[in-house]
Amino acid sequence: MTDFHTGLGKTPANHQPLTPIDFIIRSAQVYPDKTAIIYDDLTHNNLTQSWQQTYDRCRQLADGLRKLGIDKNDTVAVMMPNTPAMVECAFGVPMSGGVLCTLNTRLDINALSFCLQHSEAKVLILDSEFAEHAEIIDEAFPNLIVIHATDAAIDIERFGQMSYEELIASSDNLDNWERPSDEWDAIALNYTSGTTGKPKGVVYHHRGATLNAVSNILDWDMPKHPMYLWTLPLFHCNGWCFPWTIAERAGINVCLRKIDADLILQLIAKHQVTHYCSAPVVHNMIAGGKAEYKAAITHEVKGWVAGAPPSETMLAAMEAMGFHISHVYGLTEVYGPVTICAEQDEWETLDVAGRAQKKSRQGVTSHLMTGFELFKQGTTEPVAADGEEMGELALRGNMVMKGYLKSRKATEEAFADGWFRTGDLGVKYPDGYIKIMDRLKDIIISGGENISSIEVENVLYKMPEIQSCAVVAAPHDKWGEVPVAFIEIHAGSTLQRDHVMEHCKQYLAGFKVPKYIIFAEIPKTSTGKVQKYELRQAAKSLAHETPKVTASAKA
Amino acid sequence: MTDFHTGLGKTPANHQPLTPIDFIIRSAQVYPDKTAIIYDDLTHNNLTQSWQQTYDRCRQLADGLRKLGIDKNDTVAVMMPNTPAMVECAFGVPMSGGVLCTLNTRLDINALSFCLQHSEAKVLILDSEFAEHAEIIDEAFPNLIVIHATDAAIDIERFGQMSYEELIASSDNLDNWERPSDEWDAIALNYTSGTTGKPKGVVYHHRGATLNAVSNILDWDMPKHPMYLWTLPLFHCNGWCFPWTIAERAGINVCLRKIDADLILQLIAKHQVTHYCSAPVVHNMIAGGKAEYKAAITHEVKGWVAGAPPSETMLAAMEAMGFHISHVYGLTEVYGPVTICAEQDEWETLDVAGRAQKKSRQGVTSHLMTGFELFKQGTTEPVAADGEEMGELALRGNMVMKGYLKSRKATEEAFADGWFRTGDLGVKYPDGYIKIMDRLKDIIISGGENISSIEVENVLYKMPEIQSCAVVAAPHDKWGEVPVAFIEIHAGSTLQRDHVMEHCKQYLAGFKVPKYIIFAEIPKTSTGKVQKYELRQAAKSLAHETPKVTASAKA
Repeated sequence: MTDFHTGLGKTPANHQPLTPIDFIIRSAQVYPDKTAIIYDDLTHNNLTQSWQQTYDRCRQLADGLRKLGIDKNDTVAVMMPNTPAMVECAFGVPMSGGVLCTLNTRLDINALSFCLQHSEAKVLILDSEFAEHAEIIDEAFPNLIVIHATDAAIDIERFGQMSYEELIASSDNLDNWERPSDEWDAIALNYTSGTTGKPKGVVYHHRGATLNAVSNILDWDMPKHPMYLWTLPLFHCNGWCFPWTIAERAGINVCLRKIDADLILQLIAKHQVTHYCSAPVVHNMIAGGKAEYKAAITHEVKGWVAGAPPSETMLAAMEAMGFHISHVYGLTEVYGPVTICAEQDEWETLDVAGRAQKKSRQGVTSHLMTGFELFKQGTTEPVAADGEEMGELALRGNMVMKGYLKSRKATEEAFADGWFRTGDLGVKYPDGYIKIMDRLKDIIISGGENISSIEVENVLYKMPEIQSCAVVAAPHDKWGEVPVAFIEIHAGSTLQRDHVMEHCKQYLAGFKVPKYIIFAEIPKTSTGKVQKYELRQAAKSLAHETPKVTASAKA
Repeated sequence: MTDFHTGLGKTPANHQPLTPIDFIIRSAQVYPDKTAIIYDDLTHNNLTQSWQQTYDRCRQLADGLRKLGIDKNDTVAVMMPNTPAMVECAFGVPMSGGVLCTLNTRLDINALSFCLQHSEAKVLILDSEFAEHAEIIDEAFPNLIVIHATDAAIDIERFGQMSYEELIASSDNLDNWERPSDEWDAIALNYTSGTTGKPKGVVYHHRGATLNAVSNILDWDMPKHPMYLWTLPLFHCNGWCFPWTIAERAGINVCLRKIDADLILQLIAKHQVTHYCSAPVVHNMIAGGKAEYKAAITHEVKGWVAGAPPSETMLAAMEAMGFHISHVYGLTEVYGPVTICAEQDEWETLDVAGRAQKKSRQGVTSHLMTGFELFKQGTTEPVAADGEEMGELALRGNMVMKGYLKSRKATEEAFADGWFRTGDLGVKYPDGYIKIMDRLKDIIISGGENISSIEVENVLYKMPEIQSCAVVAAPHDKWGEVPVAFIEIHAGSTLQRDHVMEHCKQYLAGFKVPKYIIFAEIPKTSTGKVQKYELRQAAKSLAHETPKVTASAKA
């Protein structure tokens, strides 16, 4: 053994904390005059800002925050749509030493108050759109400094202690900022949506943010200077780390205050947008946009879809427009995407239905993640790669959160056995690609057989009359559990239970067909996620009734 | 301050050592059937090997080495040209726990023995080309296990304990390998060429190798599946980390036993090579290749040139062939390239002379390096960005070596002030781009003015009669130092001292014109680097003679 240790330790010369702050420094240095941000709503706002200007403003923001008292590990909360200020905060807040807490803009005042309280936020940057919260927050959090972010499109009375632009203007020292002293230092705090209880505060570190930002580039083969359209909320896993990705690439952030198909299509054509990310709903909006706007797009656009697989219909429509869509999957706890349905050459020759089937899988591990396995439940034993056996997706590596803030127990549980358990169940195909079948807690076990609630829901969604649905387990004496479907139909629809049953029998094996069909409003969280927990409670009461009781249709 | 630390420490779930080993694992998983290695000499060898096969062989190599006794931190030395075995060693050796020491294939037996001794190598994989060393090594290092690497092109008596293929075949366990337990663990040992004394052993760690491999991708916008031709020696800073880069990209390593313009041109056309790296000499060979071979290349090829700036002539010739050339700069101590002459849009509109001038600069920092400054000598004060003031290039970040093996003092000196001092002097232009002017120890200070020995040498090289030259300082009573030129002329040339002086006066300010011209053989190291130290010693004796003495021309 040769001694490769003595005298060969870490020094500032050969070891520096990984941080995405370095990305904006380099882009400002190498491409100072290249555009960093475009904010163009085709009416009131039309801003173009270079990398040098953006870097300067981020440093001003850091200095301004410090002048307000922000210090290392102070939480700076922001509640804003995808405006330029939101991009600047991804750098300016960490540069102040603070930790960026991007709040879901759909939070109601209760959830918002919880997050402010739990995170111990010292500053809240609040966009005009959410002015309604300003007064209540002012009363409830007298020590919280509220900054009013606004722009030309919005005419509203000012609130808070100062405006965002005043905060920037308050700076007189461009060097009053810092790099993290350790790459394990917190950079951001992201609250989960809290489908099963109080939201949990997921802590990100500089190391993970840096590596995830780079992994995005590697996954997407993203060249320098992409034109990136902000259809994905920047509050969602820090826009899956794309503010940092785009800074690394010296690309252009095309900001977007609201999701509007016409506006999106026009911006894609006008600014020659090359990349965007979003949930299927936004892709569907784009695909269903005005023909004249779609026709004006003649260049290749690349989109990532997450949250649910791309449907065949959506994929066909996007391909017809010349869009190239890839499917990624992730969770808040892992900085956003950690799998990508990496395309294989031979998929090119498939028809769109075949391609949609391939692309419906969540795929393979992202580039810079280390461990990615489907384990038999409660073990660290991999399932067979047979496309049949279900296992829980477990991840390990540098794109997994520091843990949950102030929840040591939840963190320890999440990291038991040295793996992060996603709570998602899936199967692995012989080629190593995985497909998520259900949430662990949503799976229904009937007569010893697994039933994926998602599979049943997807069958229900084939009925155009159904607006929303959710399938959960009800306890059952003989089978253990049976599936129950809660269905919300479009106003004016006269869909009957029997039609639903017939439809299900056509597409599903007998044991997967819901034993109860209940027409009711589906309870959702403030962020729009179905609260299956409540539905399961409701379904419990059915256990004492005779199966196949027809519930009355709503409306 | 919110507590972002308690209960939020590192666990195997959220912290894994960065290692390039992960790259080959993922490529074998996601693209098992895609080609990893092509070895095609157009005569004897024509091998194609997939990523799955390559991954399996690397694991076999790791297991085989372990069966020979290789354990954590044991040095495995290799002396091979750019054959497939050399690519496999970049993974198989670290996977065994060993540290890969790639030896310069031009080392003479003395230098080779020094490296084997100093590194405490336990195994040496030696290619047939270097069979001449086998016997001497066998006697000098009785405990060293010598493995004979060979291929179909070479008919030679076998030597050593076993062949490389026997080593691979000795494996019976594909799981007998390891990831590093710490990303700071050594992965490779690279000896400097030793222009000023004994070679120094530069230790690389897994973290730096990973980040440099990724930085290459970011610098070059390298998409997945590049076709990479191995014109750069794999022994040189581990081929500047490209075996790891190409594995990350699931690209193809086109191996190459020898540098031959005809072969290179044919391989580029036949395999549609997309990327290669090399010193200017190889680019020049390519540019000067047979017209018919050049004409057969109709796709875009990207080349990186390092070691010296691309000349206008070379650049023009390469561009005419449709090659895109970028200039990078680095050192053994920093894993190869750490600066890149990143191109700006407006350079496109320049003529080739203008572009050559821009591209002659070493440029800006690579993507994943943190600190990059030109400091006034002996300080940490940056020079003015005026293209005039010279400073020493200093670097800091994660692509700087662990240090020098068994040389604590040299390591501490190199890392003084928290920066790695490159020993290279340069200027910074107003746009932040730097240009290296000279080695710190080679600069000549005459009457208080800096004279770049490289600048004077470049002027001398404009004379076609000059085969080799070197300019060093001689002490001088009045001026402190004066430049002295040592010149080696082509056989048969009758170049005279007066012509040289006249030529220099035409291109150089008076104080830069060499005061002595000496026709002599230029002493070089076994790796071909000029030993300026010896020349300086020779020049010292001139201090006592009358200036402008004409030395007699050699041959």
